[in-house]
Amino acid sequence: PANKKLLFLPGDGIGPEVMRQVRRVIDWLDRKRNVTFDVTEGLVGGAAIDAYGVPLKDETLADALAADAVMLGAVGGPKWDNPTDYTKRPEAGLLSLRKELGLFANLRPAVVFDALVDASTLKPEVIKGLDILIVRELTGGVYFGEPRGITDIGNGERRGVNTQVYTTSEIRRVARVAFELARKRGNKLHSMEKANVMESGLLWRQEVTKLHQEEFSDVTLEHMYADNGAMQLLKNPKQFDVIVTDNLFGDILSDEAAMMTGSLGMLPSASLGAPDANGNRKALYEPVHGSAPDIAGRDLANPCATLLSFAMCLRYSFNMDEEAKMLEKAVQNVLSGGMRTADIMAPGMARCSTTVMGDSILREL
Amino acid sequence: PANKKLLFLPGDGIGPEVMRQVRRVIDWLDRKRNVTFDVTEGLVGGAAIDAYGVPLKDETLADALAADAVMLGAVGGPKWDNPTDYTKRPEAGLLSLRKELGLFANLRPAVVFDALVDASTLKPEVIKGLDILIVRELTGGVYFGEPRGITDIGNGERRGVNTQVYTTSEIRRVARVAFELARKRGNKLHSMEKANVMESGLLWRQEVTKLHQEEFSDVTLEHMYADNGAMQLLKNPKQFDVIVTDNLFGDILSDEAAMMTGSLGMLPSASLGAPDANGNRKALYEPVHGSAPDIAGRDLANPCATLLSFAMCLRYSFNMDEEAKMLEKAVQNVLSGGMRTADIMAPGMARCSTTVMGDSILREL
Ligand SMILES: CC(C)[C@H](C(=O)O)[C@@H](O)C(=O)O
Ligand SMILES: CC(C)[C@H](C(=O)O)[C@@H](O)C(=O)O
Repeated sequence: PANKKLLFLPGDGIGPEVMRQVRRVIDWLDRKRNVTFDVTEGLVGGAAIDAYGVPLKDETLADALAADAVMLGAVGGPKWDNPTDYTKRPEAGLLSLRKELGLFANLRPAVVFDALVDASTLKPEVIKGLDILIVRELTGGVYFGEPRGITDIGNGERRGVNTQVYTTSEIRRVARVAFELARKRGNKLHSMEKANVMESGLLWRQEVTKLHQEEFSDVTLEHMYADNGAMQLLKNPKQFDVIVTDNLFGDILSDEAAMMTGSLGMLPSASLGAPDANGNRKALYEPVHGSAPDIAGRDLANPCATLLSFAMCLRYSFNMDEEAKMLEKAVQNVLSGGMRTADIMAPGMARCSTTVMGDSILREL
Repeated sequence: PANKKLLFLPGDGIGPEVMRQVRRVIDWLDRKRNVTFDVTEGLVGGAAIDAYGVPLKDETLADALAADAVMLGAVGGPKWDNPTDYTKRPEAGLLSLRKELGLFANLRPAVVFDALVDASTLKPEVIKGLDILIVRELTGGVYFGEPRGITDIGNGERRGVNTQVYTTSEIRRVARVAFELARKRGNKLHSMEKANVMESGLLWRQEVTKLHQEEFSDVTLEHMYADNGAMQLLKNPKQFDVIVTDNLFGDILSDEAAMMTGSLGMLPSASLGAPDANGNRKALYEPVHGSAPDIAGRDLANPCATLLSFAMCLRYSFNMDEEAKMLEKAVQNVLSGGMRTADIMAPGMARCSTTVMGDSILREL
């Protein structure tokens, strides 16, 4: 697109300070690479609750719908832990964005950076060189299924209900994304569910199998129960290339995989919608880590995950593969040079702040 | 009870061969300790499908209901992977047993044996001395919730549905078991759900909080989202003492924790019902590992998990703490002596078969 429209939603906690580093890269692109973004900024999550009483204003949602891509920092924090009204929680803003933009495919790489092998609690030989991509379904399943809620059932008893539901087309569209990504990578896909216990998982398995036979028989497909998946990830993570799974299992398994890498502060994510007639997709990019309220505002956070999310944004939403690679390379070089924010600090390395990490990456660029 | 009624359900795969070692311990108890068990044996899972066409006969269920405790080997295998009819799967036999016996509290210890520290993919310093107890709710949630099923919704589309449901009393009774166990251990309980996304999880959090205030305020209680739990288990497992969680999260998180220990072939489990007027509970004991069809019938399997499950059986169902400890000690001594089945084999150790492992443990006793 000629006019590159980007919506910035820094959110809560460390969100604003890590997003500030992305601003600097955008300035650099403008000055040095002659690429100009039209950036709008908005509030989401707790910040939006404080300002407007809701975690996502209609106007902000409209801005998101009008943008080519959304860059999000993080949402949430104890301040807004409203235990009863779901619509008044920071998370609700993020969930609405996912649903309203139709971002059904959540790409979460679990990559071990060579310079950070020792940061993991796993043995180096188990994880060195690890490069998994988890594709998590993001707009269906138990996150959005109806009926849901808590009801009084008499005698002082209450009943809490959620519904896990998937349709053929919901399964096929996310599996398609996963198969296509597998083709560009190691050509191997693992699909995870609990088909041995849940009919929704059985449908998942059947539809993934069908799509495989119809269109992707060149990709190696394996099915795995999600509990076994949680074990196999630990036992031998390098057996995996791409993993596709539902919204809830994806939430758990991608966090497990992320923590395994020891590089949580380094991991980006992309959430993608369906391509329109011109091949453009709605998209939101955000770091895998959360809002880390305990260190917010202290210039301690690691901006790398957010910068790498912006690299994904450049690649997937703006077809700027060259610039994406430059940014990724810059991050890697700075790490190799020994710079470390507190979360990835190790003996013999140089501890630095969010800003100094940003400075160094800019310098590399 | 004067007459100690035990039902043996060896099941499939390596189930029969590991259960054979329990028989030997029972003989030993009879000969040397003057404790006699009245043992009945039955079929469950694939073995029952082969013999009777169903994974659990009514007669077998009746035997289970009449027994003081059930010892189960393992169920399942590719031979019986019936992808469409849930009632004809080996797993259905196990699920019926859990439900019909009312075994709502599943105790899964994740313990690292000193002799096996190196078997884990995690660094020794992270897991040495680890001793977590996961209490998984076992008769509710998405495993049994209605409505469920796959329906045709036209246009060649299908819809798969499962229902996650919990009531106040289901939550309270399993939380009570967990609080009581925490009191006997490190006095710390973590409760895990996704209260930020699921109302059933929100009810879970509220009821656990209430029970804590009412009866267990001396126990330290922390709530954690299940995805964060999956991360924290890896980041710093020793922060946990007892964890209580629902059926589905428990399935995943307990498998993650089990694999972390590197001692999967060593881990027992107990599934307990509500105490009756005399304080007796229905109970089923089984190893955490599965039926391992790939090594079945070859005298390769590790019988320790099943023997340790029997130790739990002695302790919880028959109040035989002394004999339980003797059996546990025997297993530990044999390990310290260097004996290893294939799954836990390490350089410098003596590799042995299922039978020889059994021999050695009997000799220790
Ligand atoms: C914040 C929360 C609603 C969210 C989720 O459960 O999806 C988060 O854990 C994530 O994985 O992005
Ligand atoms: C075999 C299967 C039905 C079972 C479960 O999902 O509960 C197993 O994974 C377990 O954890 O005992």
